Amino acid sequence: MKTHTEYLTIQTQQAREIRAITEDVKAALKKSEMTEGLVLVGSLHANAAVVLGLHEANFLEDLQAWLEQLAPARDDYKLGRGFESNASTVLQSILAGAQLPVSFSEGRLDLGPWQELLYVEFDGQRPKRVVLKFIGE
Amino acid sequence: MKTHTEYLTIQTQQAREIRAITEDVKAALKKSEMTEGLVLVGSLHANAAVVLGLHEANFLEDLQAWLEQLAPARDDYKLGRGFESNASTVLQSILAGAQLPVSFSEGRLDLGPWQELLYVEFDGQRPKRVVLKFIGE
Amino acid sequence: MKTHTEYLTIQTQQAREIRAITEDVKAALKKSEMTEGLVLVGSLHANAAVVLGLHEANFLEDLQAWLEQLAPARDDYKLGRGFESNASTVLQSILAGAQLPVSFSEGRLDLGPWQELLYVEFDGQRPKRVVLKFIGE
Repeated sequence: MKTHTEYLTIQTQQAREIRAITEDVKAALKKSEMTEGLVLVGSLHANAAVVLGLHEANFLEDLQAWLEQLAPARDDYKLGRGFESNASTVLQSILAGAQLPVSFSEGRLDLGPWQELLYVEFDGQRPKRVVLKFIGE
Repeated sequence: MKTHTEYLTIQTQQAREIRAITEDVKAALKKSEMTEGLVLVGSLHANAAVVLGLHEANFLEDLQAWLEQLAPARDDYKLGRGFESNASTVLQSILAGAQLPVSFSEGRLDLGPWQELLYVEFDGQRPKRVVLKFIGE
Repeated sequence: MKTHTEYLTIQTQQAREIRAITEDVKAALKKSEMTEGLVLVGSLHANAAVVLGLHEANFLEDLQAWLEQLAPARDDYKLGRGFESNASTVLQSILAGAQLPVSFSEGRLDLGPWQELLYVEFDGQRPKRVVLKFIGE
Protein backbone atom coordinates (compact mmCIF):
# COMPACT_ATOMS: atom_id res chain seq x y z
CA MET A 1 0.00 0.00 0.00
CA LYS A 2 1.25 3.45 -0.83
CA THR A 3 0.48 7.15 -1.18
CA HIS A 4 0.72 9.57 -4.08
CA THR A 5 0.57 13.36 -3.93
CA GLU A 6 -0.06 15.98 -6.58
CA TYR A 7 -0.80 19.68 -6.43
CA LEU A 8 -2.95 21.49 -8.96
CA THR A 9 -2.47 25.20 -9.48
CA ILE A 10 -5.62 26.91 -10.69
CA GLN A 11 -5.84 30.53 -11.76
CA THR A 12 -9.32 31.52 -12.78
CA GLN A 13 -10.06 34.44 -15.07
CA GLN A 14 -12.96 35.65 -12.95
CA ALA A 15 -12.95 36.27 -9.19
CA ARG A 16 -15.81 33.77 -8.93
CA GLU A 17 -15.61 30.80 -11.23
CA ILE A 18 -16.34 27.07 -11.21
CA ARG A 19 -14.04 24.65 -12.98
CA ALA A 20 -14.49 20.92 -13.59
CA ILE A 21 -11.41 19.04 -12.36
CA THR A 22 -12.52 15.42 -12.79
CA GLU A 23 -10.07 14.90 -15.66
CA ASP A 24 -7.17 16.25 -13.59
CA VAL A 25 -7.98 13.81 -10.79
CA LYS A 26 -8.35 10.93 -13.25
CA ALA A 27 -4.96 11.75 -14.79
CA ALA A 28 -3.35 11.83 -11.34
CA LEU A 29 -4.96 8.50 -10.45
CA LYS A 30 -3.48 6.95 -13.58
CA LYS A 31 -0.07 8.38 -12.72
CA SER A 32 -0.32 6.97 -9.19
CA GLU A 33 -0.57 3.46 -10.61
CA MET A 34 -3.04 2.59 -7.84
CA THR A 35 -6.30 0.75 -8.40
CA GLU A 36 -8.00 0.65 -4.98
CA GLY A 37 -8.22 3.39 -2.36
CA LEU A 38 -9.18 6.95 -1.55
CA VAL A 39 -8.22 10.34 -2.92
CA LEU A 40 -8.75 13.52 -0.95
CA VAL A 41 -9.17 16.63 -3.07
CA GLY A 42 -8.47 19.56 -0.78
CA SER A 43 -8.40 23.30 -1.32
CA LEU A 44 -5.35 24.91 0.27
CA HIS A 45 -7.24 28.18 0.59
CA ALA A 46 -10.14 29.02 2.88
CA ASN A 47 -11.97 30.86 0.11
CA ALA A 48 -12.52 28.04 -2.36
CA ALA A 49 -14.45 24.77 -2.29
CA VAL A 50 -14.46 21.34 -3.91
CA VAL A 51 -17.82 19.64 -4.50
CA LEU A 52 -19.54 16.92 -6.48
CA GLY A 53 -22.08 18.38 -8.86
CA LEU A 54 -23.04 18.45 -12.50
CA HIS A 55 -20.86 19.84 -15.25
CA GLU A 56 -23.56 21.74 -17.03
CA ALA A 57 -23.39 25.47 -17.64
CA ASN A 58 -26.90 26.18 -16.37
CA PHE A 59 -26.26 24.26 -13.18
CA LEU A 60 -23.03 26.16 -12.55
CA GLU A 61 -25.00 29.40 -12.73
CA ASP A 62 -27.58 28.00 -10.32
CA LEU A 63 -24.83 26.92 -7.92
CA GLN A 64 -23.16 30.34 -8.00
CA ALA A 65 -26.43 32.14 -7.38
CA TRP A 66 -27.40 29.77 -4.56
CA LEU A 67 -24.07 30.08 -2.72
CA GLU A 68 -24.22 33.84 -3.05
CA GLN A 69 -27.77 33.83 -1.75
CA LEU A 70 -27.00 31.73 1.35
CA ALA A 71 -23.82 33.59 2.30
CA PRO A 72 -24.05 36.92 0.49
CA ALA A 73 -21.14 39.35 0.19
CA ARG A 74 -22.71 41.84 2.57
CA ASP A 75 -21.03 44.80 4.21
CA ASP A 76 -21.96 43.90 7.76
CA TYR A 77 -19.64 40.96 8.43
CA LYS A 78 -17.25 41.70 11.25
CA LEU A 79 -14.33 40.17 9.35
CA GLY A 80 -14.86 42.47 6.39
CA ARG A 81 -13.75 45.51 8.34
CA GLY A 82 -10.09 45.81 7.50
CA PHE A 83 -9.33 42.18 6.61
CA GLU A 84 -8.06 41.20 3.19
CA SER A 85 -11.02 39.01 2.36
CA ASN A 86 -14.74 39.06 3.02
CA ALA A 87 -16.24 36.50 5.42
CA SER A 88 -18.71 35.62 2.68
CA THR A 89 -16.13 33.66 0.70
CA VAL A 90 -15.08 31.55 3.70
CA LEU A 91 -18.69 30.89 4.71
CA GLN A 92 -19.45 29.73 1.17
CA SER A 93 -16.42 27.42 1.38
CA ILE A 94 -17.75 25.93 4.63
CA LEU A 95 -21.22 25.59 3.12
CA ALA A 96 -19.98 23.72 0.05
CA GLY A 97 -17.02 22.00 1.70
CA ALA A 98 -13.30 22.48 1.06
CA GLN A 99 -12.14 18.84 1.39
CA LEU A 100 -13.73 16.23 -0.82
CA PRO A 101 -12.84 12.53 -0.46
CA VAL A 102 -13.63 10.19 -3.35
CA SER A 103 -12.92 6.47 -3.56
CA PHE A 104 -11.55 4.56 -6.53
CA SER A 105 -11.96 0.90 -7.45
CA GLU A 106 -10.42 -1.14 -10.26
CA GLY A 107 -8.50 1.94 -11.30
CA ARG A 108 -11.56 4.19 -11.71
CA LEU A 109 -13.04 6.94 -9.57
CA ASP A 110 -16.27 5.78 -7.90
CA LEU A 111 -18.48 8.42 -9.52
CA GLY A 112 -21.87 8.12 -11.13
CA PRO A 113 -22.25 9.02 -14.82
CA TRP A 114 -23.47 12.56 -14.06
CA GLN A 115 -21.21 13.37 -11.15
CA GLU A 116 -18.42 15.83 -11.76
CA LEU A 117 -15.70 17.11 -9.42
CA LEU A 118 -16.02 20.87 -9.33
CA TYR A 119 -13.49 23.38 -8.02
CA VAL A 120 -15.44 26.41 -6.84
CA GLU A 121 -13.39 29.60 -6.71
CA PHE A 122 -14.65 32.54 -4.65
CA ASP A 123 -11.58 34.78 -4.85
CA GLY A 124 -9.53 33.92 -7.91
CA GLN A 125 -7.53 35.72 -10.58
CA ARG A 126 -4.34 34.52 -8.88
CA PRO A 127 -2.69 31.09 -8.48
CA LYS A 128 -4.58 28.92 -6.01
CA ARG A 129 -3.54 25.40 -4.96
CA VAL A 130 -5.42 22.15 -4.60
CA VAL A 131 -3.87 19.01 -3.12
CA LEU A 132 -4.68 15.52 -4.47
CA LYS A 133 -3.69 12.91 -1.89
CA PHE A 134 -4.07 9.29 -2.91
CA ILE A 135 -3.83 6.43 -0.45
CA GLY A 136 -4.34 2.82 -1.40
CA GLU A 137 -2.74 0.11 -3.46
CA MET B 1 -3.15 -3.14 5.05
CA LYS B 2 -5.98 -3.68 2.62
CA THR B 3 -9.17 -2.33 1.06
CA HIS B 4 -12.72 -3.63 0.90
CA THR B 5 -15.51 -2.42 -1.37
CA GLU B 6 -19.26 -2.89 -1.24
CA TYR B 7 -22.11 -1.25 -3.08
CA LEU B 8 -25.54 -0.71 -1.57
CA THR B 9 -28.54 -0.41 -3.84
CA ILE B 10 -31.30 1.67 -2.32
CA GLN B 11 -34.73 2.14 -3.84
CA THR B 12 -36.94 4.37 -1.75
CA GLN B 13 -40.73 4.31 -1.92
CA GLN B 14 -40.99 8.08 -1.91
CA ALA B 15 -39.17 10.51 -4.18
CA ARG B 16 -37.77 12.17 -1.04
CA GLU B 17 -36.93 9.83 1.80
CA ILE B 18 -34.28 9.41 4.50
CA ARG B 19 -33.01 5.97 5.43
CA ALA B 20 -30.68 4.95 8.26
CA ILE B 21 -27.78 2.90 6.87
CA THR B 22 -25.59 2.51 9.97
CA GLU B 23 -26.39 -1.20 10.19
CA ASP B 24 -25.45 -1.75 6.54
CA VAL B 25 -22.08 -0.10 7.10
CA LYS B 26 -21.51 -2.08 10.31
CA ALA B 27 -22.28 -5.33 8.47
CA ALA B 28 -19.84 -4.43 5.69
CA LEU B 29 -17.17 -3.56 8.27
CA LYS B 30 -17.58 -6.97 9.87
CA LYS B 31 -17.33 -8.61 6.45
CA SER B 32 -14.16 -6.65 5.68
CA GLU B 33 -12.44 -8.26 8.68
CA MET B 34 -10.67 -4.96 9.33
CA THR B 35 -10.40 -3.35 12.75
CA GLU B 36 -8.61 -0.03 12.14
CA GLY B 37 -9.10 2.45 9.33
CA LEU B 38 -11.51 4.62 7.38
CA VAL B 39 -14.67 3.96 5.42
CA LEU B 40 -15.98 6.39 2.83
CA VAL B 41 -19.73 6.25 2.27
CA GLY B 42 -20.36 7.89 -1.08
CA SER B 43 -23.48 8.51 -3.11
CA LEU B 44 -23.01 7.60 -6.77
CA HIS B 45 -25.71 10.08 -7.74
CA ALA B 46 -25.61 13.88 -7.58
CA ASN B 47 -29.14 14.04 -6.17
CA ALA B 48 -28.67 12.20 -2.89
CA ALA B 49 -26.63 12.82 0.24
CA VAL B 50 -25.03 10.94 3.15
CA VAL B 51 -24.92 12.64 6.54
CA LEU B 52 -24.49 12.01 10.24
CA GLY B 53 -27.67 12.85 12.14
CA LEU B 54 -30.17 11.36 14.52
CA HIS B 55 -32.38 8.41 13.68
CA GLU B 56 -35.54 9.87 15.11
CA ALA B 57 -38.69 10.34 13.05
CA ASN B 58 -39.28 13.92 14.15
CA PHE B 59 -35.72 14.88 13.32
CA LEU B 60 -35.99 13.35 9.86
CA GLU B 61 -39.01 15.58 9.21
CA ASP B 62 -37.08 18.60 10.46
CA LEU B 63 -34.14 17.72 8.21
CA GLN B 64 -36.36 17.31 5.13
CA ALA B 65 -38.10 20.62 5.76
CA TRP B 66 -34.83 22.44 6.41
CA LEU B 67 -33.14 21.14 3.23
CA GLU B 68 -36.20 22.06 1.22
CA GLN B 69 -36.23 25.51 2.78
CA LEU B 70 -32.56 26.26 2.00
CA ALA B 71 -32.63 24.96 -1.58
CA PRO B 72 -36.31 24.90 -2.53
CA ALA B 73 -37.64 23.19 -5.65
CA ARG B 74 -38.42 26.45 -7.36
CA ASP B 75 -39.23 26.97 -11.01
CA ASP B 76 -36.60 29.61 -11.65
CA TYR B 77 -33.43 27.52 -11.67
CA LYS B 78 -31.68 27.65 -15.02
CA LEU B 79 -31.02 23.90 -14.96
CA GLY B 80 -34.71 23.09 -14.56
CA ARG B 81 -35.48 24.23 -18.08
CA GLY B 82 -35.30 21.05 -20.08
CA PHE B 83 -32.96 18.99 -17.90
CA GLU B 84 -34.04 15.71 -16.37
CA SER B 85 -33.64 16.84 -12.80
CA ASN B 86 -34.14 20.04 -10.86
CA ALA B 87 -31.11 21.96 -9.58
CA SER B 88 -32.73 21.90 -6.16
CA THR B 89 -31.85 18.23 -5.58
CA VAL B 90 -28.17 18.74 -6.46
CA LEU B 91 -27.91 21.87 -4.31
CA GLN B 92 -29.40 19.98 -1.38
CA SER B 93 -26.82 17.24 -1.97
CA ILE B 94 -24.01 19.82 -1.88
CA LEU B 95 -25.50 21.41 1.25
CA ALA B 96 -25.69 18.10 3.15
CA GLY B 97 -22.69 16.44 1.51
CA ALA B 98 -22.56 13.39 -0.76
CA GLN B 99 -19.34 11.77 0.54
CA LEU B 100 -19.11 10.93 4.24
CA PRO B 101 -15.91 9.50 5.72
CA VAL B 102 -16.09 7.71 9.08
CA SER B 103 -13.26 6.06 10.99
CA PHE B 104 -13.35 2.72 12.78
CA SER B 105 -11.25 1.50 15.69
CA GLU B 106 -11.06 -1.90 17.38
CA GLY B 107 -13.59 -3.17 14.85
CA ARG B 108 -16.24 -0.53 15.60
CA LEU B 109 -17.34 2.62 13.78
CA ASP B 110 -16.22 5.75 15.66
CA LEU B 111 -19.71 7.12 16.25
CA GLY B 112 -21.28 8.58 19.35
CA PRO B 113 -24.31 6.86 20.89
CA TRP B 114 -26.80 9.16 19.13
CA GLN B 115 -25.08 9.46 15.77
CA GLU B 116 -26.65 7.66 12.85
CA LEU B 117 -25.54 7.38 9.24
CA LEU B 118 -28.38 8.68 7.10
CA TYR B 119 -28.86 8.25 3.36
CA VAL B 120 -30.87 11.21 2.14
CA GLU B 121 -32.70 10.60 -1.12
CA PHE B 122 -33.95 13.58 -3.14
CA ASP B 123 -35.05 11.76 -6.30
CA GLY B 124 -35.81 8.13 -5.53
CA GLN B 125 -38.32 5.48 -6.52
CA ARG B 126 -35.62 3.81 -8.63
CA PRO B 127 -32.41 1.92 -7.78
CA LYS B 128 -29.68 4.26 -6.53
CA ARG B 129 -26.17 3.21 -5.56
CA VAL B 130 -23.93 3.97 -2.61
CA VAL B 131 -20.29 2.88 -2.42
CA LEU B 132 -18.69 1.76 0.85
CA LYS B 133 -14.91 1.88 0.52
CA PHE B 134 -12.91 0.59 3.46
CA ILE B 135 -9.19 1.15 3.80
CA GLY B 136 -7.18 -0.02 6.77
CA GLU B 137 -6.04 -3.18 8.45
CA MET C 1 1.53 1.51 6.40
CA LYS C 2 -0.23 1.97 9.71
CA THR C 3 -2.94 3.75 11.65
CA HIS C 4 -2.88 5.95 14.73
CA THR C 5 -5.85 6.99 16.87
CA GLU C 6 -6.31 9.75 19.40
CA TYR C 7 -9.35 11.19 21.11
CA LEU C 8 -9.61 14.83 22.16
CA THR C 9 -11.96 15.75 24.98
CA ILE C 10 -13.23 19.30 24.69
CA GLN C 11 -15.32 21.06 27.31
CA THR C 12 -16.24 24.57 26.26
CA GLN C 13 -17.18 27.29 28.73
CA GLN C 14 -20.08 28.49 26.62
CA ALA C 15 -22.90 26.39 25.14
CA ARG C 16 -21.85 27.69 21.71
CA GLU C 17 -18.16 28.17 21.19
CA ILE C 18 -15.55 27.72 18.45
CA ARG C 19 -12.11 26.43 19.29
CA ALA C 20 -9.04 26.14 17.03
CA ILE C 21 -7.67 22.59 17.16
CA THR C 22 -4.96 22.72 14.50
CA GLU C 23 -2.21 22.49 17.11
CA ASP C 24 -3.82 19.40 18.68
CA VAL C 25 -3.94 17.67 15.31
CA LYS C 26 -0.33 18.67 14.55
CA ALA C 27 0.79 17.26 17.90
CA ALA C 28 -1.04 14.00 17.22
CA LEU C 29 0.53 13.80 13.75
CA LYS C 30 3.99 14.17 15.29
CA LYS C 31 3.18 11.46 17.84
CA SER C 32 1.98 9.15 15.04
CA GLU C 33 5.44 9.27 13.45
CA MET C 34 3.76 9.21 10.03
CA THR C 35 4.74 11.52 7.19
CA GLU C 36 2.28 10.69 4.37
CA GLY C 37 -1.45 10.00 4.60
CA LEU C 38 -4.83 11.19 5.76
CA VAL C 39 -6.28 12.19 9.11
CA LEU C 40 -10.01 12.24 9.73
CA VAL C 41 -11.12 14.66 12.43
CA GLY C 42 -14.56 13.52 13.51
CA SER C 43 -17.01 14.79 16.10
CA LEU C 44 -18.47 11.95 18.17
CA HIS C 45 -21.57 14.05 18.84
CA ALA C 46 -24.31 15.07 16.41
CA ASN C 47 -24.39 18.61 17.79
CA ALA C 48 -20.88 19.76 16.97
CA ALA C 49 -18.93 20.31 13.75
CA VAL C 50 -15.37 20.39 12.46
CA VAL C 51 -14.52 22.82 9.67
CA LEU C 52 -11.67 24.59 7.92
CA GLY C 53 -11.88 28.33 8.45
CA LEU C 54 -9.90 31.27 9.71
CA HIS C 55 -8.72 31.64 13.27
CA GLU C 56 -9.66 35.26 13.64
CA ALA C 57 -12.03 36.49 16.34
CA ASN C 58 -14.20 38.53 13.99
CA PHE C 59 -14.58 35.62 11.61
CA LEU C 60 -15.63 33.32 14.45
CA GLU C 61 -18.40 35.76 15.30
CA ASP C 62 -19.47 35.87 11.65
CA LEU C 63 -19.49 32.07 11.49
CA GLN C 64 -21.60 31.75 14.64
CA ALA C 65 -24.11 34.31 13.42
CA TRP C 66 -24.33 32.74 9.97
CA LEU C 67 -24.90 29.20 11.28
CA GLU C 68 -27.54 30.51 13.64
CA GLN C 69 -29.19 32.38 10.80
CA LEU C 70 -29.36 29.37 8.44
CA ALA C 71 -30.61 26.89 11.07
CA PRO C 72 -32.00 29.05 13.86
CA ALA C 73 -32.95 27.68 17.28
CA ARG C 74 -36.64 28.08 16.63
CA ASP C 75 -39.49 26.62 18.67
CA ASP C 76 -41.24 24.95 15.76
CA TYR C 77 -38.93 22.02 15.06
CA LYS C 78 -40.66 18.71 15.58
CA LEU C 79 -37.64 17.25 17.38
CA GLY C 80 -37.66 20.06 19.95
CA ARG C 81 -40.87 18.82 21.51
CA GLY C 82 -39.69 16.64 24.36
CA PHE C 83 -36.25 15.66 23.05
CA GLU C 84 -33.08 16.51 24.93
CA SER C 85 -31.64 18.69 22.21
CA ASN C 86 -32.96 21.08 19.62
CA ALA C 87 -32.93 20.09 15.93
CA SER C 88 -31.14 23.37 15.25
CA THR C 89 -27.83 22.11 16.65
CA VAL C 90 -27.88 18.95 14.49
CA LEU C 91 -28.84 20.88 11.37
CA GLN C 92 -25.96 23.30 11.97
CA SER C 93 -23.66 20.27 12.31
CA ILE C 94 -24.88 18.91 8.97
CA LEU C 95 -24.51 22.35 7.37
CA ALA C 96 -20.90 22.78 8.53
CA GLY C 97 -19.93 19.08 8.49
CA ALA C 98 -19.02 16.81 11.40
CA GLN C 99 -16.24 14.78 9.72
CA LEU C 100 -13.29 16.63 8.24
CA PRO C 101 -10.55 14.76 6.36
CA VAL C 102 -7.19 16.47 5.90
CA SER C 103 -4.11 15.09 4.18
CA PHE C 104 -0.51 15.35 5.34
CA SER C 105 2.69 15.24 3.31
CA GLU C 106 6.34 15.23 4.41
CA GLY C 107 5.14 15.23 8.02
CA ARG C 108 2.98 18.37 7.69
CA LEU C 109 -0.75 18.93 7.39
CA ASP C 110 -1.67 20.05 3.87
CA LEU C 111 -3.17 23.37 4.91
CA GLY C 112 -2.75 26.82 3.46
CA PRO C 113 -1.21 29.57 5.60
CA TRP C 114 -4.61 30.96 6.65
CA GLN C 115 -6.50 27.71 7.08
CA GLU C 116 -7.30 26.65 10.60
CA LEU C 117 -9.07 23.53 11.88
CA LEU C 118 -12.03 24.71 13.93
CA TYR C 119 -14.10 22.67 16.35
CA VAL C 120 -17.57 24.22 16.42
CA GLU C 121 -19.54 23.44 19.56
CA PHE C 122 -23.31 23.93 19.55
CA ASP C 123 -24.16 22.33 22.91
CA GLY C 124 -21.13 22.41 25.17
CA GLN C 125 -20.33 23.01 28.83
CA ARG C 126 -19.73 19.26 29.21
CA PRO C 127 -17.03 16.88 27.95
CA LYS C 128 -17.39 16.22 24.22
CA ARG C 129 -15.17 13.89 22.19
CA VAL C 130 -13.41 14.22 18.86
CA VAL C 131 -11.61 11.33 17.15
CA LEU C 132 -8.39 11.83 15.21
CA LYS C 133 -7.78 8.84 12.95
CA PHE C 134 -4.52 8.79 11.01
CA ILE C 135 -3.88 6.36 8.20
CA GLY C 136 -0.71 6.35 6.15
CA GLU C 137 2.97 5.68 6.51
